[in-house]
Amino acid sequence: MINPMFNKLVIIGVGLIGGSFALALRQAGLVKQIVGIGRSQANMQRALDLGVIDEIAHHPALAMQDADAVLLAMPVGQTADIMAKIAPYLQPETVITDAGSTKQDVIAAARTYLDKHLKNFVPSHPIAGAEHSGVNAAQANLFHNKHLIITPLEETSDTALARVTALWQGCGAQVSEMQADEHDRLLAATSHLPHLLAFTFMNYLCTNIGNDPDQLLRFAGSGLRDFTRIAGSSPEMWHDICFSNRETLLTQIDAYQHTLSSLQKMLEDSNGPALKDLFSEAREARRNWFKDKI
Amino acid sequence: MINPMFNKLVIIGVGLIGGSFALALRQAGLVKQIVGIGRSQANMQRALDLGVIDEIAHHPALAMQDADAVLLAMPVGQTADIMAKIAPYLQPETVITDAGSTKQDVIAAARTYLDKHLKNFVPSHPIAGAEHSGVNAAQANLFHNKHLIITPLEETSDTALARVTALWQGCGAQVSEMQADEHDRLLAATSHLPHLLAFTFMNYLCTNIGNDPDQLLRFAGSGLRDFTRIAGSSPEMWHDICFSNRETLLTQIDAYQHTLSSLQKMLEDSNGPALKDLFSEAREARRNWFKDKI
Repeated sequence: MINPMFNKLVIIGVGLIGGSFALALRQAGLVKQIVGIGRSQANMQRALDLGVIDEIAHHPALAMQDADAVLLAMPVGQTADIMAKIAPYLQPETVITDAGSTKQDVIAAARTYLDKHLKNFVPSHPIAGAEHSGVNAAQANLFHNKHLIITPLEETSDTALARVTALWQGCGAQVSEMQADEHDRLLAATSHLPHLLAFTFMNYLCTNIGNDPDQLLRFAGSGLRDFTRIAGSSPEMWHDICFSNRETLLTQIDAYQHTLSSLQKMLEDSNGPALKDLFSEAREARRNWFKDKI
Repeated sequence: MINPMFNKLVIIGVGLIGGSFALALRQAGLVKQIVGIGRSQANMQRALDLGVIDEIAHHPALAMQDADAVLLAMPVGQTADIMAKIAPYLQPETVITDAGSTKQDVIAAARTYLDKHLKNFVPSHPIAGAEHSGVNAAQANLFHNKHLIITPLEETSDTALARVTALWQGCGAQVSEMQADEHDRLLAATSHLPHLLAFTFMNYLCTNIGNDPDQLLRFAGSGLRDFTRIAGSSPEMWHDICFSNRETLLTQIDAYQHTLSSLQKMLEDSNGPALKDLFSEAREARRNWFKDKI
């Protein structure tokens, strides 16, 4: 095993993401000791039994002692609260990263609570996940060849950036840098808005169609099945993401409705050529974007 | 082979649907002679070579002579034109059916052109298809265990209904009866609107997101891929369907916009509980409807 770059890593929230981070870094030989903190003692004990972590910490003070790095991997809604709790105990050299799906709100919390440690904070978002959660679902290769977006602050030090990049690359992730607002706009477009629209479509079907569900189901094809698949996602998780990225999402809902209204008007005005052109552009765009994926 | 119920079947438009209808009925031994009419002589010759049809007719007059049944399987936009062309040559006992994705417009054309033969017309819609088209894509089992919706008119005779039902059941289809307006409303909700929304979403991405497509593609996941799959469908076909079902679709776009606006307002008003409830209802509805399909 190569000489570990990190003697002590603290993971707050040892679930799918935090647990996979631990397993990957241990496998890569980058970390010597891994300490976990979490709400569910059953889950923490399981993490210990599985060898995902070496130790359970019950108070931030002890956990942060001599910590080289901290990963915030609890639900994004708890970020501000956790930062406030750990800030007093952070060491001058401890680097901090997170795994939140939205970045501007996490950065706002960091600016409020991390104070002089802000330079050591490197906001991150791994584009990886699974339908299962908890440490039992953790896997060493979860981030392997997956994208990881880092949205550094002006204040972020080169040292912190380099060390956190090394951690994620050690997990096998492909690290890209981006501005936080661009990240939130990009993810709103490719992930948050589609989820909201799929949930909306199912609500529309339930509330606006007179036929009973069985009737609808009988004649529904694979098109509807795939179009609504993401409406089967976790309401709690998507509630948090919608509010974490609220402003950006509201702007994009407006823009989408504007586009929908313009197609609607083409149909109202019986402007067939214009509608067919838009359909063709849409198909072309999708084929270009996904030609390697389908 | 059982004694064929139909001596002569005429298929207008021998593509995926018309060709599969011919192959299935021949395999079932329900039809003795199959005559085809179509625009592309290359496709018609291919249908003859493949043994899908026994004969190519170049004029409706000859084709309709002694015909027991006629299937209209050309693009739905040509329905009125074709009905006008064949009406003068229809025999008093010839039953007529079609395979159009929309029914009210097909029925309107029938009322205009079929005259005294209206009682022999049985509007039908097989919920089956494939991404390929033309007689080369035809297959005897295309309709096997697929739904087929019949939307009879008041004028439709019991004999015509029974004979057309026998034809589709002979193809292995599960035949259901429905009112034409209910059919168009149901299909608008489960198929036409989702297609329009998926096309709209791709247009939204192209026109509203500053990032270059490669950037978007790099970070797009399987959620976006499935949500937009139907935006890869044929612009021509969906242009025709949108206009064939224009009024119903316009009403449903309004209703969807209304539902989307109400979710948007919950986000604006920071009404988290209401938004989470709607997400939960949406997930529940989808899980119930598709529990057998996923």
